[in-house]
Amino acid sequence: MSDKIIKLDTSVIASASVVGGREHEGPIGSFFDMHDPDDSFGMDTWEKAESEMQRRALSTALLKGKLKSHDIDALFAGDLLNQCVGSAYGMLAYGIPYFGLYGACSTAAEGIMLAATLTSTGIFERAAAVTSSHNCSAERQYRMPTEYGGQRAPTAQWTVTGAGAFIVGRGGDVKIKEAMPGIPIEKGINDASNMGAAMTPAVISTLTRYFKASGSEPRDFDMILTGDLGHEGYSILCGLMRVEGYDISHVLCDCGMMIYSKETQDVHSGGSGCGCSAAVLASYVLPKIARGELRRVLFLGTGAMMSPSSLQQGLSIPGIAHLLRFEV
Amino acid sequence: MSDKIIKLDTSVIASASVVGGREHEGPIGSFFDMHDPDDSFGMDTWEKAESEMQRRALSTALLKGKLKSHDIDALFAGDLLNQCVGSAYGMLAYGIPYFGLYGACSTAAEGIMLAATLTSTGIFERAAAVTSSHNCSAERQYRMPTEYGGQRAPTAQWTVTGAGAFIVGRGGDVKIKEAMPGIPIEKGINDASNMGAAMTPAVISTLTRYFKASGSEPRDFDMILTGDLGHEGYSILCGLMRVEGYDISHVLCDCGMMIYSKETQDVHSGGSGCGCSAAVLASYVLPKIARGELRRVLFLGTGAMMSPSSLQQGLSIPGIAHLLRFEV
Repeated sequence: MSDKIIKLDTSVIASASVVGGREHEGPIGSFFDMHDPDDSFGMDTWEKAESEMQRRALSTALLKGKLKSHDIDALFAGDLLNQCVGSAYGMLAYGIPYFGLYGACSTAAEGIMLAATLTSTGIFERAAAVTSSHNCSAERQYRMPTEYGGQRAPTAQWTVTGAGAFIVGRGGDVKIKEAMPGIPIEKGINDASNMGAAMTPAVISTLTRYFKASGSEPRDFDMILTGDLGHEGYSILCGLMRVEGYDISHVLCDCGMMIYSKETQDVHSGGSGCGCSAAVLASYVLPKIARGELRRVLFLGTGAMMSPSSLQQGLSIPGIAHLLRFEV
Repeated sequence: MSDKIIKLDTSVIASASVVGGREHEGPIGSFFDMHDPDDSFGMDTWEKAESEMQRRALSTALLKGKLKSHDIDALFAGDLLNQCVGSAYGMLAYGIPYFGLYGACSTAAEGIMLAATLTSTGIFERAAAVTSSHNCSAERQYRMPTEYGGQRAPTAQWTVTGAGAFIVGRGGDVKIKEAMPGIPIEKGINDASNMGAAMTPAVISTLTRYFKASGSEPRDFDMILTGDLGHEGYSILCGLMRVEGYDISHVLCDCGMMIYSKETQDVHSGGSGCGCSAAVLASYVLPKIARGELRRVLFLGTGAMMSPSSLQQGLSIPGIAHLLRFEV
């Protein structure tokens, strides 16, 4: 098992988020930078709407950072759509050197990690990470068109309509101090309606590797934030980390649980999708770190790396969790 | 326009390729490390066969480099399948920290570039880049199942059944000296049977940016190698580069033209797919550089970043071309 922690000296210069109507109505809805109540963002297909969210998220982050697109040396972008077209078309007009990523819902963490590593080493002065998901484009691609009104399992999560953009380089308030890339882990879960269970073993892998390699403990952090385990994955993670000798229940938060109200929003196990952790991190958690309300945060971007075809062919779902340590 | 050239001090320690029957029958077929005449690689679906090719390619590269999987600090992998499951399942058992990429057919170049940058800066000691494509998994996903025997356009390319793996770090014979990431370019081509035309403007963008920023000229190189422009893209590129003031016709080669015989193999405009440039580079071009038969090579991995959905929705095809400079 690799126990390599990447030491970093860089920061988040600016971040921004764009979400749909349901996300705006959620408990942290007022924190997002921009929203469209009908989720279309002025486009005639859901896929184009997803690209438009990415476009607006990056433009807003550039505005906040008082930067132009030519100030960005490289873009790291990806999404859940087949061939990552949300990003390919969303980022096309910027004319910035482009690295396409596919990390499933861990793409925000993967992109920030690569942007952080390449700015920390001085290869780039500034790089941006952008990602998105859209409920309607994802559901019709992975499961069924939302118009069918199909019954959903209690462990199912609701794909977030949202995008997040992060501009990474020296000089920002939120420092990126460490990173640990995830190892794909597959423990036999083959239920596409239970991504939380499929991704949790990868979080355990990364988190225990990190605690051992760094000598740190859960109490060293104000928050351990997972991307989109949802209520199901959250409870599995708390229990299994206790078996590993770590009680993380007092510091564990999950973007998928924060973005919707379980009581009033009928989202079953919580939010998911690349846009989930991206939007929550960009507009809720990072600003809290910048203000000093949170001082040491571990973020684990979680992803489930299957496709509809791989499930139909009987394969189980590999998960991955990329870790970043943020500090004020 | 960004003119950033990344200066590198790293190398390819080992590389390997795995191909299908048709690639083995081609003009450079005897150079590939491994092949399966029936393209199944012992698997019961084409998608699993593609993962198996990646597995064998990486294992063979590790063997050649006298390395074990735990000697590799990070994997950069991707493919053409929806959600990049060729890589997710192919690389799962290795237990190596994993960065999923989607760069369409430019993924070999993108992966080698990231592996090179992160080993050159000392973040990782060794990293691997792995990619693949499979004719049968790609054709049924992008166009139509091969069993239909659909008529193909003269400009259409044949998706290569192949995988390539590259282990990058200090000490190898093939030095990686420079890299320039590509900028996505879209010039209105919306014909999925003419990827060469769609990708060529991106090659022109990267190549002219590189020549200007480096002060080099075509005659400074023994070979300028594009990934998979095919016969159509090749001739467009030669003509349009002449308009830009560069005659590259005497040094330009294309992996998609090298892998098949135009005369005897009925592949129309040549090969394409992530596996095309990966296999040709891994087993034919890099060994020639290592032996000193080629001394200075510019490689441009080319990708077409569309999906079947984006084409159905009327969008044109953005291309990308990532540049690497290899030296003996």
